[in-house]
Amino acid sequence: MIEESAFSLMSKRMKSSVIRELLRDTGVETLISFGGGAPDPETFDREAMAEIAKEVILNEYKFALQYGPTEGDNILKNEYLKLLKERNDISGLTNDNLLVTTGSQQALDLIGRVFLDNDSYVIVGHPVYLGAAGAFRAYGPKFITVDIEDDGLNLDQLEKELKKLDQKKALSKVKFIYSVPNFDNPSGVTLSLEKRKRLVDLSQKYNILIIEDDPYGELRYEGEPLPDLYKIAEGHNVILLNTLSKVMSPGLRIGLIVGNESLIAKTALAKQSVDLCTPGLTQRIAARYIQKGTVFDRIKNSIKIYRSKKNKMLAALEKYVTIDGVKWTKPEGGLFIWLHLPDKFDTMELFEMAKGVGVAYIPGAAFYVDDRKSSEMRLSFCLPSEEEIEEGIKRIGKLVKSYR
Amino acid sequence: MIEESAFSLMSKRMKSSVIRELLRDTGVETLISFGGGAPDPETFDREAMAEIAKEVILNEYKFALQYGPTEGDNILKNEYLKLLKERNDISGLTNDNLLVTTGSQQALDLIGRVFLDNDSYVIVGHPVYLGAAGAFRAYGPKFITVDIEDDGLNLDQLEKELKKLDQKKALSKVKFIYSVPNFDNPSGVTLSLEKRKRLVDLSQKYNILIIEDDPYGELRYEGEPLPDLYKIAEGHNVILLNTLSKVMSPGLRIGLIVGNESLIAKTALAKQSVDLCTPGLTQRIAARYIQKGTVFDRIKNSIKIYRSKKNKMLAALEKYVTIDGVKWTKPEGGLFIWLHLPDKFDTMELFEMAKGVGVAYIPGAAFYVDDRKSSEMRLSFCLPSEEEIEEGIKRIGKLVKSYR
Repeated sequence: MIEESAFSLMSKRMKSSVIRELLRDTGVETLISFGGGAPDPETFDREAMAEIAKEVILNEYKFALQYGPTEGDNILKNEYLKLLKERNDISGLTNDNLLVTTGSQQALDLIGRVFLDNDSYVIVGHPVYLGAAGAFRAYGPKFITVDIEDDGLNLDQLEKELKKLDQKKALSKVKFIYSVPNFDNPSGVTLSLEKRKRLVDLSQKYNILIIEDDPYGELRYEGEPLPDLYKIAEGHNVILLNTLSKVMSPGLRIGLIVGNESLIAKTALAKQSVDLCTPGLTQRIAARYIQKGTVFDRIKNSIKIYRSKKNKMLAALEKYVTIDGVKWTKPEGGLFIWLHLPDKFDTMELFEMAKGVGVAYIPGAAFYVDDRKSSEMRLSFCLPSEEEIEEGIKRIGKLVKSYR
Repeated sequence: MIEESAFSLMSKRMKSSVIRELLRDTGVETLISFGGGAPDPETFDREAMAEIAKEVILNEYKFALQYGPTEGDNILKNEYLKLLKERNDISGLTNDNLLVTTGSQQALDLIGRVFLDNDSYVIVGHPVYLGAAGAFRAYGPKFITVDIEDDGLNLDQLEKELKKLDQKKALSKVKFIYSVPNFDNPSGVTLSLEKRKRLVDLSQKYNILIIEDDPYGELRYEGEPLPDLYKIAEGHNVILLNTLSKVMSPGLRIGLIVGNESLIAKTALAKQSVDLCTPGLTQRIAARYIQKGTVFDRIKNSIKIYRSKKNKMLAALEKYVTIDGVKWTKPEGGLFIWLHLPDKFDTMELFEMAKGVGVAYIPGAAFYVDDRKSSEMRLSFCLPSEEEIEEGIKRIGKLVKSYR
C-alpha cells in the first residue's frame, strides 16, 4: 500500500468525474441512458475507415506505425488547414499554427499546463463542461463563474468581474476565459453573434485570452452558423480547440489546438513530456479519410439522425414533463438538452430513483465548480433510439410528478 | 503575442528535448543517424496488423471507434495479464492492477503527476533517460543522482544517499527511485541479479517506491533474462512500466502501468483529466494482434536483425575508434551503446563537426540533469543499415582522431 500522504498536491485536487461514477455498474440491463456524450456508433463510416486503415498500415507504415512529430502529422494538418478555410472561413494559417492532440481533453490539459499556477484565475460559464473544469482544476487555479443565459455568457456580469479584477490589480492573474460558443455542454445554448462580438471586444480591452472550445460546431440542426470567436478576433487573443470526435470517431482521439506560433510551440513542448506524440496510425487514418472528401456528406446523415432524436426528446418533454415551473433549452445543435426543474428538486437525489426505474441522466451539480445543489439535469439524446427517448422521458416525467 | 509572463511555472520548467533540437533540420541528405531510439520499421508486422485493423474497425467499431474506459481496453488487459505471466513470471494480478497509457511517456508523466511536488526528491541513475527526467522535471522535484556502473546503479552510493536523507528526516520527501534495469537508456547496461535483490531490499528497508521502466526487456541478444524488480519484490513497493513500442509498433502508443489497485485508481483518475482514454482503435488492434500468438516469433526476427547490427557497431568501434582512453558498453540487449571518449572531448561541441561529416549521435550532456559537460555519446544501432553503421562509425573514428 502506498500511503495517502505520498501523493502530490495535484493528485489531491483530482476528483473523479461524477459522470463516470454515476454511470459505473448501473447493473440495470434495460437502463435508458441520457448520460454520456458519446456519438451514435452507427454514424461512424466504418467501411471506409476499415479500408483506409488497412491501406495506411500497408503503405504508410513507416509513418503510421513509427514515432511521429510531437506537433502532429503534417498531412493531417494540411487537411485541417483546408477545413478551417472551407468550414470556418479562417485562413492565413500554416502548420505552425496547429498542434494535434490526443483528443480535445489533452488540449484542455495542455492549456492548463502551460498557463495555470495555483494563484491563477480562470473564467468559465456556469454550468461548465466538467472535462474542462477537471483539466484546469488539477493546476489549482481559482474559478470565476459567469452565468449562462439563453444566448450564452452573461457579459454584463463578465465585465463587472473584469472591472473588479482590474481594480484589485489582479487582471494579469486571469489566464483565460473558457467558452463553448456552439451548443454548449451542458447547457445546449449558443452564444449569439452580438455577444460573440462583445466577448471579443472585452477580451481585447482587458487583454484576456479566450479559449474557444468547439467540439459540436458541425452538428447544427437549425439556424445559420455563426462566426467563430477566432474568426471575429482574427486570431488575436483567441485559441481555438477542435476535434474529430463528434464528426468522425472519438476512438481515434484526435483533437486540435489552433493558435499563434509561440503558443503552439509552448503547448508542443508540454506535449513532448506528456505523451511524446499522438498515435501516427489514427492521425494518418483521419488525414486520408478527410482527403476522401465525404466527411461532410456523412455528417449530413448524422445531423439528420440527431435532429430527429433531438426533436423527439423535445416533444417527449412537452408531453410527459408537465409540472409547473419546469423548463428546458431548445438547442440548435450539439448533443444536449438542459432541463431545469423547480428549485425544490435535487437532481442528484433524484438520480438514484431514476436508476431505480431504469433511466439515467447527469445531475446538474456535476457541472458546477462550487458544491451547490442543483435542480437541473443534462439529457443527451444522441445515443438512445427514438423509442428509448420516448420511454425514458416518460419515466422521468412520472418520477418528477411523484417526487416528494 | 502572448507575453512570456503569462505562462505557468510548470511551463517555465519545460526544456525542449536536446535530441529533438539536435536532429531537427540536419539538412544533410546523406546523414547517418545514430540518434533516435526508433525501431526499424521493417520489423513491424504490417500485413497482419493491416488485416487486423480492418477487421477491428468493421466488426468491433462500437468499441474501437467509440470513447473507451480510462483504465483501458479489458481485452487488451487480459492479454497483458497472460504475457506478464508467461514472459515475466508475474501472476496473481487482475485488470485492476493495470492501466493502459498513451505510450510509456504518458505513464512517466502520470507517475510524476500523482507523486511529485516541488519539494519532492526523485532518485535517478545518472546518466538518465531524458524522457523520464523531462516528465518528472515538469513537476519541480529535486533530482538525487546515483552513478551507473557496468552492472547498473551504484548501490553503495544509493544507500549512502538514503542514510543521509534519513538523518535529515527527509525520507518521506523521496517519492521514488527510477530505474531501467534491462539495457538502460542511454547507458545500455543491465542491473545484475545481485544488485536487483539488494535494490529491492533497500527499497523495502527505507520504504521507497521503485519505478521500474522496462521498454527493452524483450530485446535480449545475449545472456539469460533476469527477474524483474517487480517479481523479486512480489509487487511490494514496485511499479512496473511496460510498452508495446519496441515489440510491436511505437505508432500505436500503447504503454502499461502495473501496480497495486490504489495506485492504478489514482493514475486512472489523473489520466481522466489528461486524455480521457487511449485510442480504442490502437488498443483493440494490439489486443487482437497479441491474441494471434505470433508476436514473439516476430520479435525473434527483430532480435536477429538488432543483434547483428549491434555486433556490427561493436566491431566498427573496435576497428575505427582507436584513440587511447576510449571505451564503450557492450549491451546484452536494447538499442543503445554508450561511448566514453577521454575527458578532453566535449561531445556537444563535436556534434556540430559530426553533422558536418554526415553523422549524428546524441551528446552525453543530454542525459544529465545537471548542466555538466560530457565526453560521452549515445549511439543507437537499430535504425541504420549495417553498411551505414560501418560508414558512420568510421566517420566518427576519423573525427575523433582529428579533434584538437
